[in-house]
Amino acid sequence: MSLDDAATKPHERMQSALEGDLNAVNALIRERMASEHAPRIPEVTAHLVEAGGKRVRPMLTLAAARLCGYDGVHHQKLAATVEFIHTATLLHDDVVDESEKRRGRPTANLLWDNKSSVLVGDYLFARAFQLMVETENHRVLSILSNAAAVIAEGEVLQLSAAMNLATTEEIYLQVIRGKTAALFEAACEVGGVIANQPEDVVRALATYGDGLGIAFQMADDLLDWGGTSGAIGKNVGDDFRERKLTLPVIRAVARADESERAFWVRTIQKGRQDEGDLDQAMAILMRHGTLEETRIEALGHSARAQAALAALPDHPLRDMMHDLADYVVARLT
Amino acid sequence: MSLDDAATKPHERMQSALEGDLNAVNALIRERMASEHAPRIPEVTAHLVEAGGKRVRPMLTLAAARLCGYDGVHHQKLAATVEFIHTATLLHDDVVDESEKRRGRPTANLLWDNKSSVLVGDYLFARAFQLMVETENHRVLSILSNAAAVIAEGEVLQLSAAMNLATTEEIYLQVIRGKTAALFEAACEVGGVIANQPEDVVRALATYGDGLGIAFQMADDLLDWGGTSGAIGKNVGDDFRERKLTLPVIRAVARADESERAFWVRTIQKGRQDEGDLDQAMAILMRHGTLEETRIEALGHSARAQAALAALPDHPLRDMMHDLADYVVARLT
Repeated sequence: MSLDDAATKPHERMQSALEGDLNAVNALIRERMASEHAPRIPEVTAHLVEAGGKRVRPMLTLAAARLCGYDGVHHQKLAATVEFIHTATLLHDDVVDESEKRRGRPTANLLWDNKSSVLVGDYLFARAFQLMVETENHRVLSILSNAAAVIAEGEVLQLSAAMNLATTEEIYLQVIRGKTAALFEAACEVGGVIANQPEDVVRALATYGDGLGIAFQMADDLLDWGGTSGAIGKNVGDDFRERKLTLPVIRAVARADESERAFWVRTIQKGRQDEGDLDQAMAILMRHGTLEETRIEALGHSARAQAALAALPDHPLRDMMHDLADYVVARLT
Repeated sequence: MSLDDAATKPHERMQSALEGDLNAVNALIRERMASEHAPRIPEVTAHLVEAGGKRVRPMLTLAAARLCGYDGVHHQKLAATVEFIHTATLLHDDVVDESEKRRGRPTANLLWDNKSSVLVGDYLFARAFQLMVETENHRVLSILSNAAAVIAEGEVLQLSAAMNLATTEEIYLQVIRGKTAALFEAACEVGGVIANQPEDVVRALATYGDGLGIAFQMADDLLDWGGTSGAIGKNVGDDFRERKLTLPVIRAVARADESERAFWVRTIQKGRQDEGDLDQAMAILMRHGTLEETRIEALGHSARAQAALAALPDHPLRDMMHDLADYVVARLT
């Protein structure tokens, strides 16, 4: 690795290495989100698709296929499929969360309306399925439709887990698998399947995606508490205010004494939050060490992802995937 | 046809003829809408699935396959797929339309919340795709994923066509294809495809479904104006109040004189409706004969559906499909 490489973020290096493929995927996305009859569709979609997401998920599909030596074009269709599923879930999430900002811009539900977000999301789901059907690969279809079900199930679960102090670590894992890891896993796995790889390679790719996705989401949940420092900065505490139970809180609730339990019942279950409560919550998490524990968990999943890469062919893209797994948890140190 | 038969509605006769298949489909639906982790899902879905819909769409798939001599079980999976897609669109429609009643019961968005309706709808879409993938029939997957895209596109189109006096008959047809006919068409077509039928039979089934669906939706739109009688009864005028442009209005707008045009601009485009406006609208439609014309159009599509049946094998189910095409427009005479 040259010094230049070391200075560049791993997903940016992947972007350069996959430039031709990514251009083809972007062209495909633009072509397939068009609608002859309903101009509202490309309007809403472009707002989101062009808004400068990092395209991490489609890149994983492209990288997995390429590093396995695939030289067809189906991996581009699958990469576009993955991005469409992701975009559709973002549109529906913003309706469900009543969000007003996404990637620093007003959300589609705010610019247009919830109706458009729901229906354009449905359109993108349908387009995703059309695209993947074109590969005529039964296993790919099975993996991606299963992932879609896990994603939707996880979202519903998150809805009923919010504000519920009985939420367990098992449910939390199910929620973040649905929210993030299931699509990361499927994105990697289908790259190997389309490249017709042996079972151990396909499993390794799936494990990498799962570990990467869980590490990424745990890191995100931890950063919502300002990381492990207990420093309260801007944008910290959104999950607390929305009464979402993430791992640091779930573990703190499990170990709460009587007065701490009363605090969580009031702030999370009943939603009666006053000034100073966020500091108080942070102090409880620090006391029980659950922020640091969550960091350790995230590092473990990242390491698990990296270990799985050993089963894959030696390839510059494999090295970038390794570095990506470091990168998603590097924000925590 | 015995006198008893004549007294029974055609979809009820189909229900009896397909009883074994329908029981299997209902069992499959119950099995697949379950969720180990998110009990909210079967709650919401059961509310709708068990609410006594007539199961017309899945019956069409079963009937098409059976009358073509199919004796496998994939048609049951496809019938369940079609019902899941239908139920998912109902859940999302009720969010978009802000409906409070469906099939005489409070809607899911009212009983739970919009969030649950959006996410459980997504879950059912994913489950539908999982089910159809299990048939491993590429053409079936292609037909149903295309239909899903037409449905979503039609819904978005309807959103932008509402309140817009420039809506053409072509756009109206596109909207009702998306709203109703595309799924009727696909439901029939996949029955023939799974039964491995020759191209002319598959085409005939698709044409039947398309004609039946368009006739059904036009009849529905006409009944929203109380039929052709101009009699204003209960529940008449919902589309007018919601400023939706259906065929009778689109034609009347096209032929409007200056004062009629001002009326439509005020009531539909600007949405300023006063008492007496519904009577006034009805009078304009009667003057231009567009209610009667819509009835003639619906009858034409019903007849087109019936004509297509000639290409299919002689079978009691074929006769019931013929009678069903009469039944959906019989309400208009």
